[in-house]
Amino acid sequence: MTDHMMVVHFDPVHGWSPPEIQPYGPLAIDPASSCLQYATSVFEGMKVLLALAEIPTLSFTESHMAHTAYAGPDGKPRLFRPDLNMKRMETSVGRVALPSFDTDELLKLIQKLVTIDARWIPTVEGHSLYIRPTIIGTRDSLGVAASDRATLYVILCPTGPFFRTGARPISLLAVNEHVRSWPGGTGAYKLALNYAPTFRPQQHAAKLGYDQCLWLLGDTITEAGAMNFFVAVRRDDGGKEMLMGGGTDVDVITPPLDGTILPGITRASTLELVAAHPSRATLPGLSPDVRLHTVEGELTLPQLSTWAKEGRLLEAFTVGTAVVVAAVGRIGHNGTDIVLPPHEGALGPIARGLYERITDIQEGRFEWEGWSVACA
Amino acid sequence: MTDHMMVVHFDPVHGWSPPEIQPYGPLAIDPASSCLQYATSVFEGMKVLLALAEIPTLSFTESHMAHTAYAGPDGKPRLFRPDLNMKRMETSVGRVALPSFDTDELLKLIQKLVTIDARWIPTVEGHSLYIRPTIIGTRDSLGVAASDRATLYVILCPTGPFFRTGARPISLLAVNEHVRSWPGGTGAYKLALNYAPTFRPQQHAAKLGYDQCLWLLGDTITEAGAMNFFVAVRRDDGGKEMLMGGGTDVDVITPPLDGTILPGITRASTLELVAAHPSRATLPGLSPDVRLHTVEGELTLPQLSTWAKEGRLLEAFTVGTAVVVAAVGRIGHNGTDIVLPPHEGALGPIARGLYERITDIQEGRFEWEGWSVACA
Repeated sequence: MTDHMMVVHFDPVHGWSPPEIQPYGPLAIDPASSCLQYATSVFEGMKVLLALAEIPTLSFTESHMAHTAYAGPDGKPRLFRPDLNMKRMETSVGRVALPSFDTDELLKLIQKLVTIDARWIPTVEGHSLYIRPTIIGTRDSLGVAASDRATLYVILCPTGPFFRTGARPISLLAVNEHVRSWPGGTGAYKLALNYAPTFRPQQHAAKLGYDQCLWLLGDTITEAGAMNFFVAVRRDDGGKEMLMGGGTDVDVITPPLDGTILPGITRASTLELVAAHPSRATLPGLSPDVRLHTVEGELTLPQLSTWAKEGRLLEAFTVGTAVVVAAVGRIGHNGTDIVLPPHEGALGPIARGLYERITDIQEGRFEWEGWSVACA
Repeated sequence: MTDHMMVVHFDPVHGWSPPEIQPYGPLAIDPASSCLQYATSVFEGMKVLLALAEIPTLSFTESHMAHTAYAGPDGKPRLFRPDLNMKRMETSVGRVALPSFDTDELLKLIQKLVTIDARWIPTVEGHSLYIRPTIIGTRDSLGVAASDRATLYVILCPTGPFFRTGARPISLLAVNEHVRSWPGGTGAYKLALNYAPTFRPQQHAAKLGYDQCLWLLGDTITEAGAMNFFVAVRRDDGGKEMLMGGGTDVDVITPPLDGTILPGITRASTLELVAAHPSRATLPGLSPDVRLHTVEGELTLPQLSTWAKEGRLLEAFTVGTAVVVAAVGRIGHNGTDIVLPPHEGALGPIARGLYERITDIQEGRFEWEGWSVACA
């Protein structure tokens, strides 16, 4: 962790206390606190990066993108779509009945903290400073009721690439004997309580040689590990493609936000960038002849298996703040694996295009829709 | 809270530290701790009571019960079936991959702590000293993985009757837009994380004038508030009862332990005492002509509604460590209420019989199957 953390307390009489940026250290928490007894705890995951590269080496198809491309490092720490993290945190806090907070104010405090600890931002590619805003319920009573007291804090820690596997795809074990989230549950909120139940199944998956769990609800795919899940499937055009002489249509499919799925910010960004290809901007390295179509729709394991057998399952990948984009190499269930086509450097062309475009935006090499926000 | 608490720490190198009984006070917890970030937290709820009464005023049908009836107060603090709490805690700890512990050793430490703070045990009827053993994950790393460090602590607090409503039945709002537990979820474990999602629905129920939520999964009843749920339903005997001239058959029904239900200790005790009536022991105040039959089976809201219309729904009640047994007066759903028959003093004859029998056992007035355990 870095040198400092930001802390602010809420009580029902005084509201939020003046925020304090103080040396990193333990919190004094009453043993009867709501956060320890009833898991009233909400967090966010954000990343801060420094503008690193010099001149974009990527080709752009549209002039309105080229002119906004990054012109050189400004040395300022950059956040990626932080307004979405703030909005999601507000929604999560409401779900567990913690006191609401001023999202604009919190974002300003995060930027201030990042600026103070800016020397901790790694300058090695693929590394970043991870930001963890957290709100915990601190009502110190065992009565089973909402917490009317809270502590909001922000801590920072430098991180390397999420998977230390280097350039190899990850393997997933499809799991439905344990269920991560369900209709009417809390899977759509970023709550501490969504994670503890995943550790035992994750240990089991690791024992069987898989990197992460692919969470199912019955046969339906929801998420992978703590990430959103995508597949790229070539459309079955009945051979028209050959006759017409041009292009391939590919559906990029992810489960819909039906209440069981975390509305990931990398997920939303992936959908937007996929939708922009190739009409508004091509993904780096991907031919404009590949026409991508976003689909937010149900994905089942048997369907994946069928597509794989038909040779239409081109790629599977996971997305998330920590990992950005990771390739999936195989998906195991009941002793058999669905195997994805291998690619040099692990990522297939669509996943690689997304990875490069998102990190270009994050690191300030490429301007897109104001997603990269410099700290003042 | 009382003057003291028991604290013991686990780390992967040294295992569990020597336990310490120390003055009650805040714990120093790293802001990145697993318990705050990923809700690795397990607790138990137990009660300690003093043997209070003098001579049992209740009639016993079987001599083997009468001879074990309580003969007078011994002044020793008594726990109720603490072995079941220890076993359940062990199971819960396993579910969220926290380090296992010696259940016998913990029970001894709890007894020691209770003895030290014995002056806090209330001597007013209906009051008791509540015991809250808790284990929290203290791994201080943001990586989404099991906690290999933990702190186990026990805190005590004197409590009065659970519902401050006096002798009135509670009202329940049946809720299925929020779902407390799900097959493959964690509803069968006593985890902190099962509670935070219930606070918002509980606030909504209160706003509509209901005391607690009745948790549904679709139409199926699971639990009520943080308690197990029972109904007593007169069997439809087609009028045989009148012809045969004797007795009434009543099913005492509670949802089965299918993975969505907390295996409550008062729930288990209720089932055992109901099964014992009237062959092995009558419930106090209940005629031996009322034959009770335990049913662990699916309970749906439409079924309850039908039984109510037929006049066969005799009682609905909730059970739990804090409440022991509480009468349910009405159950609301979609703007209509299922109304239960009113009883003087709120509890119907079956619920009252159970309440009296269980508190008799807890307070040492009545010996049954070794359920009441004196602290050494």
